[in-house]
Amino acid sequence: MTQVPVQEKVLNENQRLAAELRARFAEHGVFVLNLISAPGSGKTALLERTLESMPRDARVAVLTGDIQTENDARRLARAGFPVQQITTGGTCHLDARMITRAVEKWNLGDFDTLFIENVGNLVCPSSYDLGEHAKVVLLSVTEGEAKPLKYPSIFAKAEACVLNKIDLLPHLVFDLRVAKANIEKAHPGIAVLETSCTSREGVRTWTEWVQARRAAEFSRATAGH
Amino acid sequence: MTQVPVQEKVLNENQRLAAELRARFAEHGVFVLNLISAPGSGKTALLERTLESMPRDARVAVLTGDIQTENDARRLARAGFPVQQITTGGTCHLDARMITRAVEKWNLGDFDTLFIENVGNLVCPSSYDLGEHAKVVLLSVTEGEAKPLKYPSIFAKAEACVLNKIDLLPHLVFDLRVAKANIEKAHPGIAVLETSCTSREGVRTWTEWVQARRAAEFSRATAGH
Repeated sequence: MTQVPVQEKVLNENQRLAAELRARFAEHGVFVLNLISAPGSGKTALLERTLESMPRDARVAVLTGDIQTENDARRLARAGFPVQQITTGGTCHLDARMITRAVEKWNLGDFDTLFIENVGNLVCPSSYDLGEHAKVVLLSVTEGEAKPLKYPSIFAKAEACVLNKIDLLPHLVFDLRVAKANIEKAHPGIAVLETSCTSREGVRTWTEWVQARRAAEFSRATAGH
Repeated sequence: MTQVPVQEKVLNENQRLAAELRARFAEHGVFVLNLISAPGSGKTALLERTLESMPRDARVAVLTGDIQTENDARRLARAGFPVQQITTGGTCHLDARMITRAVEKWNLGDFDTLFIENVGNLVCPSSYDLGEHAKVVLLSVTEGEAKPLKYPSIFAKAEACVLNKIDLLPHLVFDLRVAKANIEKAHPGIAVLETSCTSREGVRTWTEWVQARRAAEFSRATAGH
């Protein structure tokens, strides 16, 4: 019970830092996505395919979060774009302070798109605003159809759901229609994108979604001026 | 920063309740396992196969935790043994208070084995003692080989690691030897059990492990008297 006010204080402080981050991202024209999923749904693999599909001079960067290890940063750095690993120690999510510290090492004017790969966890990361323009939730088809009903918060907050590992569908007992109905129930109207990072099916549709969402964000911002 | 002492207080209170639970389990001769994994690794499916393999008069019960929905309790109840769903609201783990409330609805003398299926999360559940005799971590082979290095705490605390969904190995880029080496690195000497809840391969070895671990627990307890 005593936890509630402290938790609120932590979230309020996070909200303040996230608002500062959002202002800095807007100032430099950086579009920011916060990728959230269970451990092993394929966030790093999707980002590998995303970076590989980009021209060498793309102005893109990645922050990748994990409890321990620099594995993901090493994997992602192969594409040649700036990558920073954030290791949280024991913390089960990224927070705005961690993002603030990381982006201070960069000149944000060098980028137009920043991907943030959160710690693998479907619960806690959904509560921490990182100043992003949109959250994206990944769901691997190996995880079963019920996840959107069991973890409704992150599905409600995400603008898009990437249904990943669809190359495995022939080998699974997984009803794609039920899964999509559950996603739609948790978040009516959410964009649903099917991908395989092995066969590369759907990766182009995903990167096009990112580009379109970025364009929409900044035309909105311009219209607002 | 202010979070630390409150978090400690919460964990100390949990520890006190867990000790009470452990005493009650010992008094009634109930062997308790706490199953932890990422969302979608197959905890419910493993418990379904486990319950199906048991004789009708087995003295077994299940508590199953989720943020939302009674799905898992419905699935598990089909086997005919007592099952309770614990829905945590937004909380990302089960705690000892939730277990205390749930077991009050039962006569513990009716059971010799209690399975607790934790909320799908590789991080936070590892910090909350539920009065169990052993933690078991599940890792689906679809989740990649690096999980034991990225989430070392739960692998260090678990007595056994169930490598699940091995029927999918022919369709994955997954190196079983690397995964096992990483598990062994996170917890030297941990029991590693390979299972498929689809083909049922390895399920008997798993249930035998549970029986043997139970027998060891109570022979140890008797020797201690």
